Amino acid sequence: MPQFLNTNDADFDRRFAALLEMKREDAPDVDTVVAEIIADVRKRGDAAVLELTEKFDRLTLTPETMAFSVEETDAEIAKVPAAERAALELAADRIRAYHVRQRPEDARWTDPDGAVLGWRWGPVSAAGLYVPGGLASYPSSVLMNAIPAAVAGVERLVICAPTPDGVVNPLVLLAARLSGVDTVYRIGGAQAIAAMAYGTDTIAPVDKITGPGNAFVAAAKRRVFGKVGIDMIAGPSEILVIADADNDPEWIATDLLSQAEHDESAQSILITTDAAFGQAVAEAVERQLQTLPRAEIAGPSWRDFGAIIICDDLSRAAALSDRIAPEHLELCVSDPEALFAQITHAGAVFLGQWTPEAIGDYIGGPNHVLPTARSARFSSGLNVLDFMKRTTLARMTPDALKAIGPAAEVLAASEGLGAHGASVAARLARLNSDEG
Amino acid sequence: MPQFLNTNDADFDRRFAALLEMKREDAPDVDTVVAEIIADVRKRGDAAVLELTEKFDRLTLTPETMAFSVEETDAEIAKVPAAERAALELAADRIRAYHVRQRPEDARWTDPDGAVLGWRWGPVSAAGLYVPGGLASYPSSVLMNAIPAAVAGVERLVICAPTPDGVVNPLVLLAARLSGVDTVYRIGGAQAIAAMAYGTDTIAPVDKITGPGNAFVAAAKRRVFGKVGIDMIAGPSEILVIADADNDPEWIATDLLSQAEHDESAQSILITTDAAFGQAVAEAVERQLQTLPRAEIAGPSWRDFGAIIICDDLSRAAALSDRIAPEHLELCVSDPEALFAQITHAGAVFLGQWTPEAIGDYIGGPNHVLPTARSARFSSGLNVLDFMKRTTLARMTPDALKAIGPAAEVLAASEGLGAHGASVAARLARLNSDEG
Repeated sequence: MPQFLNTNDADFDRRFAALLEMKREDAPDVDTVVAEIIADVRKRGDAAVLELTEKFDRLTLTPETMAFSVEETDAEIAKVPAAERAALELAADRIRAYHVRQRPEDARWTDPDGAVLGWRWGPVSAAGLYVPGGLASYPSSVLMNAIPAAVAGVERLVICAPTPDGVVNPLVLLAARLSGVDTVYRIGGAQAIAAMAYGTDTIAPVDKITGPGNAFVAAAKRRVFGKVGIDMIAGPSEILVIADADNDPEWIATDLLSQAEHDESAQSILITTDAAFGQAVAEAVERQLQTLPRAEIAGPSWRDFGAIIICDDLSRAAALSDRIAPEHLELCVSDPEALFAQITHAGAVFLGQWTPEAIGDYIGGPNHVLPTARSARFSSGLNVLDFMKRTTLARMTPDALKAIGPAAEVLAASEGLGAHGASVAARLARLNSDEG
Repeated sequence: MPQFLNTNDADFDRRFAALLEMKREDAPDVDTVVAEIIADVRKRGDAAVLELTEKFDRLTLTPETMAFSVEETDAEIAKVPAAERAALELAADRIRAYHVRQRPEDARWTDPDGAVLGWRWGPVSAAGLYVPGGLASYPSSVLMNAIPAAVAGVERLVICAPTPDGVVNPLVLLAARLSGVDTVYRIGGAQAIAAMAYGTDTIAPVDKITGPGNAFVAAAKRRVFGKVGIDMIAGPSEILVIADADNDPEWIATDLLSQAEHDESAQSILITTDAAFGQAVAEAVERQLQTLPRAEIAGPSWRDFGAIIICDDLSRAAALSDRIAPEHLELCVSDPEALFAQITHAGAVFLGQWTPEAIGDYIGGPNHVLPTARSARFSSGLNVLDFMKRTTLARMTPDALKAIGPAAEVLAASEGLGAHGASVAARLARLNSDEG
């Protein structure tokens, strides 16, 4: 059974703080190995990538076979059953329709002094998406990473997706094609991240790398950050459900298990205003764990990190939720909009009992790459802006420079930066002499 | 003299590539020391911060005197001469007016299936700004960091600004007040970053830390990233000027020196279509270095990292500029707008000969915290969105769930995630039985 907490218990504050501080991840320290792999790929390029692929994935490639050819891709995609293809197409369409609305607008205006100011957005030129191999090779994640990049207008979009022992997931290749990905390389690990960041003879370097991965991939992303942009380093998944008594405990139990089944380190929390309902959900979870296919993952997650919190009213629930800053937040209450208005920190919110979190994982439209480990306090889910950057612009006229230049001179002098001041002064001197 | 390159030279490509790859920074490896400082602050809180401040800043504080009091601040601000106060106020007003336009909009719509989708932006709750002490204690940087945070709606805004030997910069305190900063702590280094990230009895933890600093501060920011959000780790400053022959070589020389005077590692590059003009600028730089107050910094920067590149036409200049992806880009040409349209990667662009880069450092309105070291390929200058995060929202109706739920079930099955599919299936079963 998971932890039960009640806001009226004397030790609630201590136990809630302990829940927040719980260390769920025990990532192995692979930084030294990763540093060596990156150095090797920088030095030897393709040769290093091919050797490491042979070593880690037991797969012999050549520079020519590093990427899937169009023919191979066609053949793999042809294996996808019609129902799965249709589902993936619907998901791609809906994710695209949502993200298209995130395209930012340029701005340009003339201020009262006559200065033209503004900014212009543009896409990064090339993005590389990492897709894990094996069990965690999720086609939905391909859509969630690649479609925002494509919508941003990224010109060159590549994927690195290892195929250990040569085992290919046709759905990954279909998702890549539906998303507008140009090339899929069957390489993985830190060597793939290094190849995308620094380039090899075969793989042109990219400007931004996103996508989930194991400890090696995460360490490599941290190391290449600065050389290229990266997305957040994601931690184990989390869900918080706030539910009143007017819900089916079986549904809520399933929703909690839908995060728990991701990872033994995942965390599922229920906050409810009704203790009896909380008990009923706990019992439903135990029942469902008897038959859930991934019970051997969901069970430990729920026992070790799950919690049911009883509190007196929904305002308190909102305050507790903000301290958790959950990745996923389900509001299964009679007036979810009113409760949403009280929430400040959450990655993605699912309003009302007809919106299970799994809808958001696949097909709702919003992104499923979301901030974990309380980082929703300061960061957002993956979105179109992650693949764009903003260039600011300013254009002075002589009059504008006369109006604001002297203040710049004063500030430059106060900071002891002579050339800064002189660059303004020289132009003002010309203007004054032209008038004199 | 700096390097001269000509695109028509046989070895141009090699030399230009070498210019791009030039390692300008030789940051000392302080990571071990910084890790110890952070651990110490996490363990001993205020006591550690006070001891380290005594050690590094030769300043004895108590928890009560860690922050400037209102009275002290008033007294310091009273020392600021009227001209400097007026200049700082004008700068603050103009920076605020620019950044207010960056406030993002929420969105909410109903899709054809009846699903409500959207997102909501919100500010981070608390931000901490680092302001270096001593020579690099720039009031303009206080405005550039604090005003976007205030415009974003950040509730609690604090500054850590060390005062080695107790020397205070009154302009920093005035800039803080003009920007809406709540509290200024006179602490610095890795200990200040640790205190803001993890909190002490006196300093409440923040959610986002921005601002420049030395190698210790940069290493500490890297280490607390994830616990809190951080801005980019800035490298040495850079300027690229693209100029045709119709410019005063003295002005362009001053503009190049206005970056060179920041730091011996700064880089100033001129691209021009006129070799004689390039030569004239080089001579003007040498002349100005005779009298420039910070010549001992600007001189080495210009000699070691400066360059003058001659190329045949402005389209080529734009292409070279994109490979440099400069932090600051001045377009001193007859039609700067046409050239701007050809530029893809740059932090901030200054159009026309009346817009010296120094205007952007102080008073133009756009931010002066900008991506360095070619990171304008994938990142933007500091802006209001850096202090905000976006929560996505989705609300299904029974009809919407019936329309898109089955596809989610198919995808969940294809990824082997049973509870994901079951959370949709249970709700669809209810809807079907209600209808039956």
